[in-house]
Amino acid sequence: MTRKLRLGMVGGGQGAFIGDVHRMASRLDGQWELVAGALSSEPGRALASALELGIPEDRSYANFEDMAIREAARADGIDAVAIVTPNHMHAAPCIAFLGQNINVICDKPLAATLEQAQAIEAAAKASSAQFFLTHNYTGYPLIRQARDMVKEGELGTIRLVQVEYAQDWLTEEVSNKQADWRTDPARSGAGGCVGDIGTHAYNLASFVTGLKLESLSAELTSFVLGRQLDDNVQASLRFESGARGSLWASQVAVGNENGLRLRIYGTKGGLEWEQEDPNKMTFTRFGEGKQILTRGGAVSNASNLTSTRIPAGHPEGYLEGFANLYRDAADLIRAQIDGEAGDISNLVSLEDGLDGMRFIQACVQSSENDGAWTRIADF
Amino acid sequence: MTRKLRLGMVGGGQGAFIGDVHRMASRLDGQWELVAGALSSEPGRALASALELGIPEDRSYANFEDMAIREAARADGIDAVAIVTPNHMHAAPCIAFLGQNINVICDKPLAATLEQAQAIEAAAKASSAQFFLTHNYTGYPLIRQARDMVKEGELGTIRLVQVEYAQDWLTEEVSNKQADWRTDPARSGAGGCVGDIGTHAYNLASFVTGLKLESLSAELTSFVLGRQLDDNVQASLRFESGARGSLWASQVAVGNENGLRLRIYGTKGGLEWEQEDPNKMTFTRFGEGKQILTRGGAVSNASNLTSTRIPAGHPEGYLEGFANLYRDAADLIRAQIDGEAGDISNLVSLEDGLDGMRFIQACVQSSENDGAWTRIADF
Amino acid sequence: MTRKLRLGMVGGGQGAFIGDVHRMASRLDGQWELVAGALSSEPGRALASALELGIPEDRSYANFEDMAIREAARADGIDAVAIVTPNHMHAAPCIAFLGQNINVICDKPLAATLEQAQAIEAAAKASSAQFFLTHNYTGYPLIRQARDMVKEGELGTIRLVQVEYAQDWLTEEVSNKQADWRTDPARSGAGGCVGDIGTHAYNLASFVTGLKLESLSAELTSFVLGRQLDDNVQASLRFESGARGSLWASQVAVGNENGLRLRIYGTKGGLEWEQEDPNKMTFTRFGEGKQILTRGGAVSNASNLTSTRIPAGHPEGYLEGFANLYRDAADLIRAQIDGEAGDISNLVSLEDGLDGMRFIQACVQSSENDGAWTRIADF
Amino acid sequence: MTRKLRLGMVGGGQGAFIGDVHRMASRLDGQWELVAGALSSEPGRALASALELGIPEDRSYANFEDMAIREAARADGIDAVAIVTPNHMHAAPCIAFLGQNINVICDKPLAATLEQAQAIEAAAKASSAQFFLTHNYTGYPLIRQARDMVKEGELGTIRLVQVEYAQDWLTEEVSNKQADWRTDPARSGAGGCVGDIGTHAYNLASFVTGLKLESLSAELTSFVLGRQLDDNVQASLRFESGARGSLWASQVAVGNENGLRLRIYGTKGGLEWEQEDPNKMTFTRFGEGKQILTRGGAVSNASNLTSTRIPAGHPEGYLEGFANLYRDAADLIRAQIDGEAGDISNLVSLEDGLDGMRFIQACVQSSENDGAWTRIADF
Repeated sequence: MTRKLRLGMVGGGQGAFIGDVHRMASRLDGQWELVAGALSSEPGRALASALELGIPEDRSYANFEDMAIREAARADGIDAVAIVTPNHMHAAPCIAFLGQNINVICDKPLAATLEQAQAIEAAAKASSAQFFLTHNYTGYPLIRQARDMVKEGELGTIRLVQVEYAQDWLTEEVSNKQADWRTDPARSGAGGCVGDIGTHAYNLASFVTGLKLESLSAELTSFVLGRQLDDNVQASLRFESGARGSLWASQVAVGNENGLRLRIYGTKGGLEWEQEDPNKMTFTRFGEGKQILTRGGAVSNASNLTSTRIPAGHPEGYLEGFANLYRDAADLIRAQIDGEAGDISNLVSLEDGLDGMRFIQACVQSSENDGAWTRIADF
Repeated sequence: MTRKLRLGMVGGGQGAFIGDVHRMASRLDGQWELVAGALSSEPGRALASALELGIPEDRSYANFEDMAIREAARADGIDAVAIVTPNHMHAAPCIAFLGQNINVICDKPLAATLEQAQAIEAAAKASSAQFFLTHNYTGYPLIRQARDMVKEGELGTIRLVQVEYAQDWLTEEVSNKQADWRTDPARSGAGGCVGDIGTHAYNLASFVTGLKLESLSAELTSFVLGRQLDDNVQASLRFESGARGSLWASQVAVGNENGLRLRIYGTKGGLEWEQEDPNKMTFTRFGEGKQILTRGGAVSNASNLTSTRIPAGHPEGYLEGFANLYRDAADLIRAQIDGEAGDISNLVSLEDGLDGMRFIQACVQSSENDGAWTRIADF
Repeated sequence: MTRKLRLGMVGGGQGAFIGDVHRMASRLDGQWELVAGALSSEPGRALASALELGIPEDRSYANFEDMAIREAARADGIDAVAIVTPNHMHAAPCIAFLGQNINVICDKPLAATLEQAQAIEAAAKASSAQFFLTHNYTGYPLIRQARDMVKEGELGTIRLVQVEYAQDWLTEEVSNKQADWRTDPARSGAGGCVGDIGTHAYNLASFVTGLKLESLSAELTSFVLGRQLDDNVQASLRFESGARGSLWASQVAVGNENGLRLRIYGTKGGLEWEQEDPNKMTFTRFGEGKQILTRGGAVSNASNLTSTRIPAGHPEGYLEGFANLYRDAADLIRAQIDGEAGDISNLVSLEDGLDGMRFIQACVQSSENDGAWTRIADF
Repeated sequence: MTRKLRLGMVGGGQGAFIGDVHRMASRLDGQWELVAGALSSEPGRALASALELGIPEDRSYANFEDMAIREAARADGIDAVAIVTPNHMHAAPCIAFLGQNINVICDKPLAATLEQAQAIEAAAKASSAQFFLTHNYTGYPLIRQARDMVKEGELGTIRLVQVEYAQDWLTEEVSNKQADWRTDPARSGAGGCVGDIGTHAYNLASFVTGLKLESLSAELTSFVLGRQLDDNVQASLRFESGARGSLWASQVAVGNENGLRLRIYGTKGGLEWEQEDPNKMTFTRFGEGKQILTRGGAVSNASNLTSTRIPAGHPEGYLEGFANLYRDAADLIRAQIDGEAGDISNLVSLEDGLDGMRFIQACVQSSENDGAWTRIADF
């Protein structure tokens, strides 16, 4: 009888958004149970949140440092910790748990600054623990199918990558728990929209195409008066392979809820996918008709099928995609426990997180330099 | 600290489809834990399935009769049992658990025959337990919004109900675990397609409109040579209110994965929704432009919002809708434990299940009578 | 230098709808010029309309009888006449022009009654002129491609035909030129919605599938109080081949502008097309992914290409489809002039018009008989 | 009785594409008749083409210079000439006909070089004739509705303009009449894709928003080996108002037929429209649900309705939009004949054509300067 893996959580107390997403994602396949947490920096809220979630009082910690030490000391200590705090609060807990050789599942972007990200990297190198970054859109079955199709050459040589992520919830000045830290440089880092969703778009494009970005030319804008961080980013992309692309991310594009969209064009074929309708993708071989590929449908490849729970036509969504990252993490952690090599083909790694930080920095610097082409390798 | 509710399961062993769906749905919100089961009529598979799912060996039962008696006797016995067997195996376990006053969550349709359904009804009347039928499509947030919009008169008086459910997986003769019992009258009952998916379509239309069906004229067809049950049903509908409608269900409509679609037209407005794209619904007030309503979006009503977990634009799907039924059941069972009246507004009840059985019988009889209009009340 | 064909018109004066459509359709390819007309039964309007359209005063006639005689007598008389009056005014002018051996292009449905239709048939048999019925939806390139695909067996044996035509413009009581005659039995015939748009749906299904209808069971409803003719029709269809189908036409389905939709399913494949988005069609081979076929696109067949004017992606619409009927008529008339056999593969014939009349009559009679299955051959 | 306007044509002989489009567009509303032409620089083809089109032999000219002089001398000379030659052959005939005070309808882009464009401008200033540029996408009814909605403030202050035009027909090396001149700098000018379709995208964005472009940063790429002109362009846009935008045009984006798409976001609302589905447009007021506006539909404004021929739901397409430009030109020419001021609100003027030429030049220069921001006013 296989035991469930034990999960701890830092952040994600009452009123939080992404913490609850991580919890639902971890539950879906029955592989994880949440047993410990430092859910809030406010002690009362931390405990109340813990009890609500069925975490025993003695495993509800007042701070993550304490949690890392005490969980590491328990025979039934956590197998992994999920870090679901705002960006500027990623590095310290990541380092603390890695220091105790506890596996870390960290929300994106990796940190608020490149320096913080590099500190995490150093801690990871010194640790035996594994590191997982939840760029959750990589969990969609069709995204994984797309990645394999590109790899197998079905699109030929990639020429163009058009990726965009449009929202509208910051169209006006707004103050609430979610908006406040995302528009505050102290908590979010130097990137606003570019860090919050631009990195998702960049990561998704990288994941699917496997292309390395060489340089970019970016323009960051803050349309709302008084906003300190960008709420719109437009970037032109040059990949090392010679491919070209553009990235647009916006939080002021009225009428867009969560419009993450990826389009890839190669010498032989084109692929188009939209996150709001994630159970289908269109694929065209040059000179042939457009095909609709579906999650779990007739022309699914292995990556699609193994990331799928229910038959085609029964839509899976955001949580199922997110849950795939928890399932993959469980597999890799169980493999480590068993002393086996796991399958890292779907892993969003620390290096991907660092790459995302370089992308943010390059965007910010290019924008400050009037859109000068800026090399990623310079960061 | 709130305890999780304890769930048992009858059926759903290795190789089953809907059992796993029930388990995922029950896990999503962290309100249930699966602790007991009679997962297969084959003892070896039952135990292996149980262990795989983390059910302790002593609560893996060889048969449901035993399970009902022994779970009822435990202080920590199950709070509810999920019945996820083929149709002809619903009645006996339902009656056994109801007889022990254990709450029942039963998959649809209610039974293989009207007689079995009535036996369940008798058992329920004699029991203090609650009964839940998993017509899961009622769990979609926009379906609940639609139901409220109709109730509040936003469509005016309903004139037309067009509902359809098209699949293609039985286009050719096929033999596998899922197909075999669904095409076998002994296990499925007198309805094939009409029982398997026609009842979903009928239930959805009834749930949203609140209309009572007066009579129907149906034609059931078996297109695949040698198939004993219908694989296609077309029915015209007359509602008591004077509204008209049509229902089409098919399992041989090539190109359809799971095409459940509902369209409702009234004197003042029209609503259209498709299960394969469940996060949006179109609504038109007569003489105005078409609006797109979204799950969790700008014009959500209370039913939409309370059935929603994540922000608009992050698609929720089939499992989230199904999980809403488990969440509602948990609420009602906790209310009962606390001696309080729960909210039954979203309940798919035993009476709804009986209504579905009458619908199947009426379709079969009308079809045998060359489409004669057949009254539901005659069954 | 090829001369333009000379067109006359009966009906279609100021304020008319379909007359202008015929004129635009006839102009598009430069094959026709409008040179004569009896555009209105009201002499003043007739002349004013004619002058507006560039018809010389001496060829603007006060009545169609006069026009038929005088045009037949001219050396430069019309090559064809378009009859664009309300239904009850089709037969008399058709007979008059056929009697003068002038080709007739008649709007649908063929007539207001089956008797009138048969009188037209008799006149046609006695005439050397050709007869064209403008069931214009057959002019869409993808509809012609679909027809050929069915004929060539790409769908296998057809099992199911689902056709619908939903509008909402008669949702409330309304009085205007277009609505008045369509809801008046004296001018429209015994069918309201069924005659106006139900026949289009029926014709389209017949054109594409080539199937003969054996019998139908229909229910006609008038939802708007006081309306004398049906504004909604639901019919179940049995084809001679054993195929089944359903037809729904409505003028009270709020939110539908002109929702003509055809879906055909066979043993090997399925096709789906919607008139409001006519430049694409989906096609699925059983067990393969769905394909999007486009007008003029990569997988066009000959019928698609020869009915297409501009490259794929540049949408053609209703008028272009309609114009294809005028182009085909021009080809057939020129062939006749040249003493050659023309290509009648796309012809909507008088027999098709009679078939439509039988369909209307069968629907009306079945509905009066509580939906009894009614044979087409009995009319 | 209103006479038809007399149209001449330069270019558009057998095998041409856009010439036939102009002819169909001119015919649709019955306001024009084609009476003269210099349809090809090859005399045999010129005459054959003319006769095929019903142009009398004596008005089929061997060259446009001759045509301009002789038509100007006729009492029944042409009211306007359509110039439908490749880009490098626009200027000379434009100047010739303007010199004879004959109205000119010129295909886009205005010319192959800015110098040619300025020469046309000079000729127009010295002429009493009117000048029309066929950026035909401005003729779509919903585009005109969008323009008015922006003007009336329904979107608030515009912040973002995302426009794209994606095709795939130049994905591989190809040689045919259409491809050859478009990829030849001598005939097309310095811009390939940017001139052929990028200017359409730019013009459409300008027409709808009314914004003036301040500067741009562009990257032009030729993906196909040996191609002399760009087949892909990505540009970031800064408008004088402070709005930002991006423009992407490609002829190597596999799976795109004619994907012109415009999205505009302001402080109060957002609009989205796609040319391949031109009969609808989505509009969102911030904080409200998305609406679907349709051509001729329930919430049409005056510009939509006056550019519409047939009821909502009966799709109009590319040719109808193009025909609106011919209808507008006819109105303005008739107004001039009558000595009245016409309505120029929909006019695509010579100044718009010059603006398009500056856009092309700025793109080419910015791209040569590694994407440096380049001011439009510098050209």
